[in-house]
Amino acid sequence: MDLHVNNILKDLEKDDIQAYLITQFTNVEYISKYKPTSFAFCIIKENPIIYVSEMDMELAVRDSTINVKQYESYDVMIQELKKEGIENLAIEPALPYSTYAKFKDDFEISSQTYIDKQRMIKTDSEIEKITKATEIAQKSFLQLDILNNKSTEKAVAFDLVRHMIENGASRESFDTIVTSGPNSSLPHAIPQAKKLGRPVLIDWGAIFEGYCSDNTRTVVYSESQQEIWDIVAEAHDKTVKAIRPGLKCCEVDKVARDIIAEYGYGDKYIHSTGHSLGLDIHETPVFSSRDETIIEKGMVITVEPGIYLEGKFGVRLEDTVAISKKADVIGDLPLKID
Amino acid sequence: MDLHVNNILKDLEKDDIQAYLITQFTNVEYISKYKPTSFAFCIIKENPIIYVSEMDMELAVRDSTINVKQYESYDVMIQELKKEGIENLAIEPALPYSTYAKFKDDFEISSQTYIDKQRMIKTDSEIEKITKATEIAQKSFLQLDILNNKSTEKAVAFDLVRHMIENGASRESFDTIVTSGPNSSLPHAIPQAKKLGRPVLIDWGAIFEGYCSDNTRTVVYSESQQEIWDIVAEAHDKTVKAIRPGLKCCEVDKVARDIIAEYGYGDKYIHSTGHSLGLDIHETPVFSSRDETIIEKGMVITVEPGIYLEGKFGVRLEDTVAISKKADVIGDLPLKID
Repeated sequence: MDLHVNNILKDLEKDDIQAYLITQFTNVEYISKYKPTSFAFCIIKENPIIYVSEMDMELAVRDSTINVKQYESYDVMIQELKKEGIENLAIEPALPYSTYAKFKDDFEISSQTYIDKQRMIKTDSEIEKITKATEIAQKSFLQLDILNNKSTEKAVAFDLVRHMIENGASRESFDTIVTSGPNSSLPHAIPQAKKLGRPVLIDWGAIFEGYCSDNTRTVVYSESQQEIWDIVAEAHDKTVKAIRPGLKCCEVDKVARDIIAEYGYGDKYIHSTGHSLGLDIHETPVFSSRDETIIEKGMVITVEPGIYLEGKFGVRLEDTVAISKKADVIGDLPLKID
Repeated sequence: MDLHVNNILKDLEKDDIQAYLITQFTNVEYISKYKPTSFAFCIIKENPIIYVSEMDMELAVRDSTINVKQYESYDVMIQELKKEGIENLAIEPALPYSTYAKFKDDFEISSQTYIDKQRMIKTDSEIEKITKATEIAQKSFLQLDILNNKSTEKAVAFDLVRHMIENGASRESFDTIVTSGPNSSLPHAIPQAKKLGRPVLIDWGAIFEGYCSDNTRTVVYSESQQEIWDIVAEAHDKTVKAIRPGLKCCEVDKVARDIIAEYGYGDKYIHSTGHSLGLDIHETPVFSSRDETIIEKGMVITVEPGIYLEGKFGVRLEDTVAISKKADVIGDLPLKID
């Protein structure tokens, strides 16, 4: 049986839990290689199974590494579990309340993060896919020739996605952000149908074989913009250097936050320092002031300090690092675009 | 106060519920016009409020029609609700279990579909946006010149999205399906990097001002493909004609299913006959054998019968209809592409 399934079975045994219900698409994909398209109920137990809709049977049977069965109704699933003697059931934390409600009267239920914890530690093959996604994304960014680009934000975003797909990505890993001028102070700005202003902030990523990449570059033009850029770059570089296994995630966040605060911009750093990624663009753990997770080898996390001056402009610089004995930046795109 | 908020307040009053917690992005957008980018806790009560992350404050304050407050912690939210004397709380059915768990010890909680029921009935302005999205999508489809197109599935899918964006869509309303040859028997096929085979099935939609469109056309070439196409077209047309307010959704599904079964392909019709759409591509009610919802004026639902011959090919034909005294097909793209 698959390594991931085996590890989760061990977790279940330790906690005396008989089965683990998983429905989030990327969790099901992680466990079975089958990527659901409508819905899926994956139940990890001694003999794991995925219930899928009639319409997905052909695809699921073709792709899944674990057994597939056609979903008929909640009642049928519940009766089949009971027949196997299953009395307690763990669920994903993200399970919709309405699904939980279908099972809660028939089983003792606990919310468990086994799958999230498994997904925190990437295998070499997962890191290779993230690296390939990053290489595709960075190569595509360079094709934009952003310094001489006279298009609109929207057109640049579209060109970037086109380059990524032409270079082998299956799609963008999230809505591409191309923002410029005062709008760049919105961390999640939407590209507008207006010509690129200054500075230009681009936050983008590709998906390769299911795995995401994530980078941000900000191209600045004036002295005041460069001053902010230098602070963010210092925070970026020193944070990457500080990361090592054994440290807590919140301690990494503090490194970036302290540097920006020293320059007097503490209240302009309005988000966390980074998030893990993999099959999803946002995974756990995160470099936030509240996340006490201990950093381990195999984690893949972004480092993305920023300073946002409302009404003026924003600067963010983001790389993704893979944790070995230290933090190895994935990809080789310079911070400074020139 | 906004009509949608007012209607939900009336529902709350009727059921003696003091507040309604909403977190799904399109639900928050529906209520407030603010489109969350990271997370949002919208609480509908006498004085409705949305808690957003620090990073989203600028955008939320700019766009939201209801009050916005910076999220600090679950504890702070819970204490503020208690201070207002709130003891019971309704939640969206789709609320993640882990969020429910944060509130469950402090409030009497019930899962309620008030928001889904509101969203079922579209206003004229919502129907106008869906119509515009459909027009953009259909115009873009025609630009493909699919009968003479020699590209790969993946390239055609990409061109279609490009046309939609150039024609004014903000993006595709779901992963565009361009599939051909034997793969067309997978209802949710992923476009491949291979030249278009025969038949060609395209399922696509645009988003305009937040609202989705959804259509499918299948271009057939051989006599055996045409035979199946004719059956699906008959099911499509007769189902559209049968729809009227007062009928149950499952009765509409039965119309399509019976026609296909009469021709001996009942077991090859492996999905429901349609789904509602709006801010989301999949909304309730659905034309399925289990949905007993009574059809009402203002609903906008797809009609999409299909026949899937595993290993051979599939045919699906889909239009979106707006319910008035009957079902008005949105857009004017013919079923037959020639």
